[in-house]
Amino acid sequence: MIIVMEHSAGASQIAAVIAALEGRGYSTHLSAGEERTVIGVIGDGRPIDGRQFEALEGVEKVMPVLRPFKLASREMQPQNTVVALNGVKVGGPQVVLIAGPCSVESRSQLLETAHAVKEAGASALRGGAFKPRTSPYSFQGMGEAGLELLAEARAATGLPIVSEAMSPEQVPLVARYADVVQIGARSMQNFALLRAAGLSGRPVLLKRGMMATIEEWLMAAEYVLAQGNPRLMLCERGIRTFEHYTRNTTDINAIPVVKHLSHLPVLLDPSHSTGRWTYVTAVARAGVAAGADGLMVEVHPRPDEALSDGGQSLTPERFARLVTQVRALAEAVGRRVPEAK
Amino acid sequence: MIIVMEHSAGASQIAAVIAALEGRGYSTHLSAGEERTVIGVIGDGRPIDGRQFEALEGVEKVMPVLRPFKLASREMQPQNTVVALNGVKVGGPQVVLIAGPCSVESRSQLLETAHAVKEAGASALRGGAFKPRTSPYSFQGMGEAGLELLAEARAATGLPIVSEAMSPEQVPLVARYADVVQIGARSMQNFALLRAAGLSGRPVLLKRGMMATIEEWLMAAEYVLAQGNPRLMLCERGIRTFEHYTRNTTDINAIPVVKHLSHLPVLLDPSHSTGRWTYVTAVARAGVAAGADGLMVEVHPRPDEALSDGGQSLTPERFARLVTQVRALAEAVGRRVPEAK
Amino acid sequence: MIIVMEHSAGASQIAAVIAALEGRGYSTHLSAGEERTVIGVIGDGRPIDGRQFEALEGVEKVMPVLRPFKLASREMQPQNTVVALNGVKVGGPQVVLIAGPCSVESRSQLLETAHAVKEAGASALRGGAFKPRTSPYSFQGMGEAGLELLAEARAATGLPIVSEAMSPEQVPLVARYADVVQIGARSMQNFALLRAAGLSGRPVLLKRGMMATIEEWLMAAEYVLAQGNPRLMLCERGIRTFEHYTRNTTDINAIPVVKHLSHLPVLLDPSHSTGRWTYVTAVARAGVAAGADGLMVEVHPRPDEALSDGGQSLTPERFARLVTQVRALAEAVGRRVPEAK
Amino acid sequence: MIIVMEHSAGASQIAAVIAALEGRGYSTHLSAGEERTVIGVIGDGRPIDGRQFEALEGVEKVMPVLRPFKLASREMQPQNTVVALNGVKVGGPQVVLIAGPCSVESRSQLLETAHAVKEAGASALRGGAFKPRTSPYSFQGMGEAGLELLAEARAATGLPIVSEAMSPEQVPLVARYADVVQIGARSMQNFALLRAAGLSGRPVLLKRGMMATIEEWLMAAEYVLAQGNPRLMLCERGIRTFEHYTRNTTDINAIPVVKHLSHLPVLLDPSHSTGRWTYVTAVARAGVAAGADGLMVEVHPRPDEALSDGGQSLTPERFARLVTQVRALAEAVGRRVPEAK
Repeated sequence: MIIVMEHSAGASQIAAVIAALEGRGYSTHLSAGEERTVIGVIGDGRPIDGRQFEALEGVEKVMPVLRPFKLASREMQPQNTVVALNGVKVGGPQVVLIAGPCSVESRSQLLETAHAVKEAGASALRGGAFKPRTSPYSFQGMGEAGLELLAEARAATGLPIVSEAMSPEQVPLVARYADVVQIGARSMQNFALLRAAGLSGRPVLLKRGMMATIEEWLMAAEYVLAQGNPRLMLCERGIRTFEHYTRNTTDINAIPVVKHLSHLPVLLDPSHSTGRWTYVTAVARAGVAAGADGLMVEVHPRPDEALSDGGQSLTPERFARLVTQVRALAEAVGRRVPEAK
Repeated sequence: MIIVMEHSAGASQIAAVIAALEGRGYSTHLSAGEERTVIGVIGDGRPIDGRQFEALEGVEKVMPVLRPFKLASREMQPQNTVVALNGVKVGGPQVVLIAGPCSVESRSQLLETAHAVKEAGASALRGGAFKPRTSPYSFQGMGEAGLELLAEARAATGLPIVSEAMSPEQVPLVARYADVVQIGARSMQNFALLRAAGLSGRPVLLKRGMMATIEEWLMAAEYVLAQGNPRLMLCERGIRTFEHYTRNTTDINAIPVVKHLSHLPVLLDPSHSTGRWTYVTAVARAGVAAGADGLMVEVHPRPDEALSDGGQSLTPERFARLVTQVRALAEAVGRRVPEAK
Repeated sequence: MIIVMEHSAGASQIAAVIAALEGRGYSTHLSAGEERTVIGVIGDGRPIDGRQFEALEGVEKVMPVLRPFKLASREMQPQNTVVALNGVKVGGPQVVLIAGPCSVESRSQLLETAHAVKEAGASALRGGAFKPRTSPYSFQGMGEAGLELLAEARAATGLPIVSEAMSPEQVPLVARYADVVQIGARSMQNFALLRAAGLSGRPVLLKRGMMATIEEWLMAAEYVLAQGNPRLMLCERGIRTFEHYTRNTTDINAIPVVKHLSHLPVLLDPSHSTGRWTYVTAVARAGVAAGADGLMVEVHPRPDEALSDGGQSLTPERFARLVTQVRALAEAVGRRVPEAK
Repeated sequence: MIIVMEHSAGASQIAAVIAALEGRGYSTHLSAGEERTVIGVIGDGRPIDGRQFEALEGVEKVMPVLRPFKLASREMQPQNTVVALNGVKVGGPQVVLIAGPCSVESRSQLLETAHAVKEAGASALRGGAFKPRTSPYSFQGMGEAGLELLAEARAATGLPIVSEAMSPEQVPLVARYADVVQIGARSMQNFALLRAAGLSGRPVLLKRGMMATIEEWLMAAEYVLAQGNPRLMLCERGIRTFEHYTRNTTDINAIPVVKHLSHLPVLLDPSHSTGRWTYVTAVARAGVAAGADGLMVEVHPRPDEALSDGGQSLTPERFARLVTQVRALAEAVGRRVPEAK
């Protein structure tokens, strides 16, 4: 950590800062420049959360040196984490496709979709039984009945299931039926939920919050990893910006940044990150080209009848075309979309 | 709801959209202009969530006409909601000051602060027993022991207590000790928590998410109100923008906007909305001038020793100066800060 | 245009709005719903700028129906605009690479770079002679001497030249030496400059402002096109968001959105859109996968000695690797990077 | 400047960075911690623009220590700059009101407004003769004829004139008629224009760009000051965020931040910063409470007939009420709105 003193800071203020630091067991190194006095702070190798020193008189700013995430960082683990999902490996050479409806709405809707996405080349089925909705008056999901349908779809197709838990109490229930517990964007900093997911015994898929920095996202990952659960996948789903021709802005930079900083697999959800089906396929291609380990795509047999997210859902036919294109792209970057079994 | 068709949309596409709408029981009104065909959609008076119609061929965009919040809106209730807090009324002519430490850290820290803020003019004491922290390695709060200290501080000073619950299970516990259940910014769309708070039997203070639009904030309020709990206060605490000289950007516009759209009281938290104690008092003044019904301010006897948010905490002396200034401001806008008892 | 009246708007307010509209020659259509009265406004087919009607009592909001750009829109011209650049065509099946240093710094720096990027596969040379710099104390470019060096580099390599003009007076000078006049991100709404570029007789490359919406970008294009200059290329270069691990956020969504809305070619500048050389190649790949018609990449023989943007510049060796990867990607999406001649 | 090396950086990479720094004449100080090696870089007291060192292998990040602005900083000049405007002083104890129409539209419109705002208490008249418009099809201003009308309004009322120049060539013309040359938000980084304004011989009012950080804004100020023109006023006018219930987000934090960092006067434009007349008065009050040295407010006799910005313009009656409220607020913070003469 580096503390920069104000230009006008006097000797007694500097001494008080040093005393406060040393009182907490830190070593300090003083560098008195012409324009600013700078205090280097050396701890025990762990990141220091030092914002409170901005409360001391004469302190201009506190600059961290270390990144705050540890377990999620490539420094801690240089080789990629690979999460096995019923014979498919996420984080290795394969590019994995997870597809399915936003919400489980009915048996026929789900089974029709599950068969279609499997045939097109998906390796896992997504579907929400508990839905976080902005409005209390919107459809909130089928709950456990939806999970039962997901289990039935797995039995029918062999596809592993990804489904969201919205609160710590729901985690055991979701983990009983689903193969992967998803943490949604709105829950990325629901710390009790992160802990519960870490203890679920299931792989976890952690979506980035729509206004979370990459650093905060990796810190959320840290909550899961700190429970001893290493089977964690990240998923970029677009961030909120001033641009309103699309629902969110796909932060495509985040793909190589996360691959650089972390050993965790990272997927892209082009459905949420664009918010409009017209743009989903182009952005799916971009994700794979940028190095994503997989895609998570919303598919619905009749999007205009969907109870949620219809505007961004692909029909099964459009999804099949997406798979064809993504397959070619994956090969161009030396990877492979697994064949439909 | 208004549906705008693309310039190139053909008659069969238009007919299909109308059929889809009428199949759901909506009436439609077609307006075929030179450049665009526009379909007006009339429902039963409730907002229509119609994004899924963007999935239909030829649809360019779907524009809502009605705002989605109902119980929180001034249309539903023209007169201001006033929430009573141990004899102080939030949402009426008074400007209410809530102050205290970010976290409850120890008995002496809390009691010292409680007496100081009361003397300075605060009407309620804030203090966190459960703390949402970006890092799993940071101090996470004292838990129930912290709530017990808050109850002791109330007994000693008479100040009502505001404290945060982070998950549905914590709500009954917090509600047992505290007078107001706070929902933090990171939890603004934790819908299970919102429902639990709505059922807590306590007044609720709902902070705006750092990434939430005003509309989403009022929709979160709707979740609380829909449980039959009308004692709800809103609190602006800054939004996330590209500007990084301050920790957040105070959305001062939100104060008059919320007062215009809603009957609910709205407070400002200048500590989080600036993130730096140096700027807290100026922005506190601005909040009162803009029409806020109160302020929530972080105060710590020794900010540089705080276990959280030290950089934005005022000392008791600085808080006392803030109160003096805010008192003058309140009178200039025809309101009043209650006298310390 | 649609005008939504407030719930509380009375008959006289509605009548006043209609009178104001009809007084300006618009036809109106009134739709009195249970919750809101909505007034449809029909003009002569051109977009109506109607925000001033929000000044009338009882008006809740004004919603435009038409998009404001015309010449830039696909409705006006369904087929792609193709801009010829010394035998290379931008906007057709080829994916065009423009590369070179941020600033022209010296004869040797420029010629070394020009030969290297040509050999690697670039179709055009970029280089700034006039540099917009945040600080008045930073290097501001070599001016006309830089343009002379660019002309020399063209003579030596055959590569057409792209160079920026920062003010209307500079346009004729830049147009005398360069093959393409670039409008930089900070100048995207320098309307006098846009008009001058439109009159320059040269193709124009218009970068998106770092906080410009796609709509504003296309309106800036409209200024150029309205001068009768159809040879216009757009270039996405990243937008400003809250994320600070990268200098900007690449708005990859903008590529398919612009291709959908407009007939103009669109390029991606992954150097500015990431701000860090480490991430340039991955995002360049993503751009081509998303459908960009070309890339503009900063290359410097010794980035750490660059007078501007060194941190995001590729060495010639890294650029050559980028070209190899992008070439494979282009083929996977059915396009082609032209061979080095 | 501080350079943080990657965890994995080897001795030869560190040596190469030090060699590069010392080759440019900087002194370095090496601090080899357990987790990171940190290199302190000491220059000649001026800010170092060191981003190009991120191009060197093994460099994780470059952190500036000094702020890049000098002439605009309080370190350079501790006491407030006061700009005299026909007997009114901006930056001293007075709170100065500048009011008038967005655009000069006609003689009667301007004179009616000028007399009204003078009577209400304004100290200067604003009005645009050259208008930056997003659309080339919108009204672009009356040009010199508008400036002549402004001069006539000054003669009639005694109010000094504030008017915008959009390009360097317009500066002498605007400076001939107006008392203050305004640089608009879209031109904040039009560096040729900033230089021309610095040489105009007139006080300059520099609006913050809607996408500009406070640091960039002060660097734009630096361009003006570096021409030897100290009569510079800043004006916050709202920044662009994700919130769309208002046209912009008033960055009220910027008022105390700029007063802290700089000696320059800072005004607030609540018309643009809210974009809706309904909210202008509340935010104007907030600006004065936060410490703004003045306000710039759009006033139009018939806002719904305005050729630009009607939705955010106050009628003269509403402006008069704003002045009454602001006057009370100013007194509550120990300042004074000058009486109408």
